[in-house]
Amino acid sequence: MEQIFTYGQLYSFANKIFLSIGCSETDADTATKVLLSADMRGIDSHGIARLSGYVRLWEAKRVNAKPQIKIIHQTPSTAVVDGDSGLGLVVAPFAMQIAIEKAKQVGTGWVSVQNSNHFGIAGYHAMMALQHDMIGMAMTNASALVAPTFSKERLLGTNPICVTIPAGEEPAFIADLATTTAANGKLEILQRKNSAAPVGWIQDKEGNSTTDAHALKNGGALLPLGGDRDHGSHKGYALGAIVDIFSAVLSGANYGPWVPPFPAYVPMPENQPGKGIGHFFGAMRIDAFRSADEFKSNMDNWIRRFRSAKTVEGEDKVIIPGDPEREMETIRMQNGIPLLPAVVEDLLKLSDKFSIPFS
Amino acid sequence: MEQIFTYGQLYSFANKIFLSIGCSETDADTATKVLLSADMRGIDSHGIARLSGYVRLWEAKRVNAKPQIKIIHQTPSTAVVDGDSGLGLVVAPFAMQIAIEKAKQVGTGWVSVQNSNHFGIAGYHAMMALQHDMIGMAMTNASALVAPTFSKERLLGTNPICVTIPAGEEPAFIADLATTTAANGKLEILQRKNSAAPVGWIQDKEGNSTTDAHALKNGGALLPLGGDRDHGSHKGYALGAIVDIFSAVLSGANYGPWVPPFPAYVPMPENQPGKGIGHFFGAMRIDAFRSADEFKSNMDNWIRRFRSAKTVEGEDKVIIPGDPEREMETIRMQNGIPLLPAVVEDLLKLSDKFSIPFS
Repeated sequence: MEQIFTYGQLYSFANKIFLSIGCSETDADTATKVLLSADMRGIDSHGIARLSGYVRLWEAKRVNAKPQIKIIHQTPSTAVVDGDSGLGLVVAPFAMQIAIEKAKQVGTGWVSVQNSNHFGIAGYHAMMALQHDMIGMAMTNASALVAPTFSKERLLGTNPICVTIPAGEEPAFIADLATTTAANGKLEILQRKNSAAPVGWIQDKEGNSTTDAHALKNGGALLPLGGDRDHGSHKGYALGAIVDIFSAVLSGANYGPWVPPFPAYVPMPENQPGKGIGHFFGAMRIDAFRSADEFKSNMDNWIRRFRSAKTVEGEDKVIIPGDPEREMETIRMQNGIPLLPAVVEDLLKLSDKFSIPFS
Repeated sequence: MEQIFTYGQLYSFANKIFLSIGCSETDADTATKVLLSADMRGIDSHGIARLSGYVRLWEAKRVNAKPQIKIIHQTPSTAVVDGDSGLGLVVAPFAMQIAIEKAKQVGTGWVSVQNSNHFGIAGYHAMMALQHDMIGMAMTNASALVAPTFSKERLLGTNPICVTIPAGEEPAFIADLATTTAANGKLEILQRKNSAAPVGWIQDKEGNSTTDAHALKNGGALLPLGGDRDHGSHKGYALGAIVDIFSAVLSGANYGPWVPPFPAYVPMPENQPGKGIGHFFGAMRIDAFRSADEFKSNMDNWIRRFRSAKTVEGEDKVIIPGDPEREMETIRMQNGIPLLPAVVEDLLKLSDKFSIPFS
């Protein structure tokens, strides 16, 4: 049975945990907000369920709770940020803010980040641009779970891309997508139910297509968006590769099979070519292209035309990217956030460890 | 039977055709090079096979052979270009050159284009960045052939994205992909053979999945990368939408169902919200992030690790984006360019019309 918590309850607990591992008040607040934005938007795999994972990374000394995050190279429209092994939850908003400041100055800003850790949902960071009438972008690499087309080796993470685009009267367009057929979180749901996965989601350790949802644990791999060559998996692979290169080869972070794993018990890959995990952020001021008002009224027109398109039988409406997460946010704001028993148990263990009440 | 032509033969003919419709010598040269780069790279659907299509657009007064292409808005890192209804083959390199010049000045350059026409292959334009040690990007919208997830209406073009990334000793990484499961050109091959299309490529006019390769002609639609909701088609749809918005909502071109069609006999959509077709270009100077030498040696490492990855049974090697097109270019440089009888016939008609010998 799921248990329901308010945003306030989860905020208070997570914030105290981040303070307990040594984060500054500002950083603990930021990290908590980024983490919980995932729960609020219904992306439960990236929310408070991961809190204990971040703590274990800190215990393993892979996360520095007091990082000196800094710019190590820049031009008027670009920067490279060294995250000093900080929580990605803190490093990412820092870097995105730099992209926004540069966009204010010269129209656009582009920031590649090295020496970071997992940054939560890409959406939080890219959405920071919206309030400034800017288009926002966020991407990150991650430890390898995905096999490139024709390979049986895992060489790429699920490497998400998020693009946020402001509108006028309509809510913003927010596309936040892993470059795989299915996110790992969806596969985990099938694993818990012992259900079969659709063809095109995963392959076994020999690289054969399989519907066994447990194949990933047994040396298999997630498949790039497209699923197989006939259905364009080389395109999903190329997109995941672009995210990897922008995030890590451009910044000096680790890429491909060398990206540090999220579970602290998994050994670090050997012969790493860079530092930590890499991210990439972008901000483009709308009025660096045309009047923001004109743009927004055209975005409203775009959104309305697509949302009112004729649907196939059995479907209500065409979804605009960002609709489902925004609707979930409204529901959870009113009804609270449901957590699975395993997640609650995990948080109770943290509660014990740090003597911080959780209820 | 295919007939073989040298690059020189096709260059000479196409160049004279562009001169005949009134292009300047410089523009005719550029348009010819862009067009033939598709044939050389094996993307036959976007090459000289389309020459007569461009001529028909000019005859229909939808293409202006003597455009005054100009910047209508700019900041240090951005510009909007008005293509003055010129050939996209000419407007696109002009705009990409502006992106490159801005990147020289402030690290990156981003150019959105209105009032243009079809620009050939995205790869040509994005590759212009490589010789400057820059990452290049090119995208364009196109007339609607693709249904968003859950819709039975065609609202998006095949909206390609190209990203080119320089390497050191290895050839550059060049990903050039339509945001659909399969390019229209591949479907046309199946139509000619009366073969079935794989599930996930197209739907019929009611939005039902079909393997009938002719469904597109009968009111059906191409499907976004992913194919269906279970396999991530909402991601392909989001990517196509981003291309549409960056290319057209940002520039003031037409978007969604209002994009002008390539075939001159198809009527223009009514109530168009913008001007012509839209494109979007980007250039990022590598050394705006880190030393170009360091970057390139890491790109070589990335490419070698992926190319030498263990393959699934029956496959030789993992392909790096750009490999197949580069290999085709080498072959066609040596052996010439094969053209289908229908294409040769089409060119012979042009030859007659303009009294320009073709052989």
